[in-house]
Amino acid sequence: MYTPKPFAITDPNIINQIIYDNSFATLVSETEGSSLTATHIPLLLNSSEQVLFGHIARQNPQGEVLENKKILAIFHGPHTYISPSWYETKKSVPTWNYLSVHVYGKASLVQNEEELRKSLDELILKYEGEESPFFLRNMDEKYIDALIKGIIGIKIKITKIEATAKLSQNHSLERKNLVIQELEKQKDQNANEIAKWMRENLNA
Amino acid sequence: MYTPKPFAITDPNIINQIIYDNSFATLVSETEGSSLTATHIPLLLNSSEQVLFGHIARQNPQGEVLENKKILAIFHGPHTYISPSWYETKKSVPTWNYLSVHVYGKASLVQNEEELRKSLDELILKYEGEESPFFLRNMDEKYIDALIKGIIGIKIKITKIEATAKLSQNHSLERKNLVIQELEKQKDQNANEIAKWMRENLNA
Repeated sequence: MYTPKPFAITDPNIINQIIYDNSFATLVSETEGSSLTATHIPLLLNSSEQVLFGHIARQNPQGEVLENKKILAIFHGPHTYISPSWYETKKSVPTWNYLSVHVYGKASLVQNEEELRKSLDELILKYEGEESPFFLRNMDEKYIDALIKGIIGIKIKITKIEATAKLSQNHSLERKNLVIQELEKQKDQNANEIAKWMRENLNA
Repeated sequence: MYTPKPFAITDPNIINQIIYDNSFATLVSETEGSSLTATHIPLLLNSSEQVLFGHIARQNPQGEVLENKKILAIFHGPHTYISPSWYETKKSVPTWNYLSVHVYGKASLVQNEEELRKSLDELILKYEGEESPFFLRNMDEKYIDALIKGIIGIKIKITKIEATAKLSQNHSLERKNLVIQELEKQKDQNANEIAKWMRENLNA
């Protein structure tokens, strides 16, 4: 991802937060014959080990060819159109503000069933929360076995992370405030979230 | 994208609508040395010509290598976590419902300035609307010239489209209704939009 300097995020805490908040990622890889393919799946980051965990349907042909392949996992944050009509001058053009983290890495298939189950448990805990009635370990073993046969666990060893937060940092404080006001008026959650990120970055 | 049959969208009108509603796309291609790269930009579909139009910053290194390259443009629709705790049985697992359109094509750089200006005008018209005070043609020619020097127009000849709408079609009507009820309760717009799509597909 091309990231002009004002938009680059380097703070690992912010990067990890964006990954955590937007974990329904786009996993891109090459299949045989150098054609691109992508799958939409949740990916969880283990930041101490610099590894992403996820799983895909066994029938998904992308799975078979992931072993030892370079992948790109894209975590999409909020994004919104920015109209130059909000600015104090007409001498400007529209743009798009957005947050995105691109994680490069090498994929391998999780062969160890315990490791796969652990990553499924973590995924469920994240989305269900502590108080959910639903946990894998409470389920019938035969049922779980059948489910696990239907998926392939994926582990991605991270080699590089690129992170962009395009939040009008290249504009004046006056103009940023005008943009925030307009975004806060909108009923669109993406616009509101970008406004929040812009506000937090006003004094950065 | 692996699309099990119940989730495949084949109606071109629905596909075009998803592209139109989610035009801030992820443009994926290979750079030299077969590494993957992606840029987030709005792309507009000309469905009669089966072409996507967009532009990227001239400084973006992805631009130079796009000429004649195979690309994948991903249009992300709404997406949301589906908890099995909403179901009438505990014998099930979490999933994610989502809409996504993957457009494959061959990229070329727009060399004709008139063609580039036309695509910029269309993009602005789409997002600004007819009543906006902002139009490229109302602006100072020198200013526009400078802007146009800073970007590269991209034209993508579409070769294949894959479209997925994962909306619990593989579950019972009773269960779909339970899911819709829970999604409609949420304050998350993505969840509400998936509920709307599910409701429209109940009798499909």
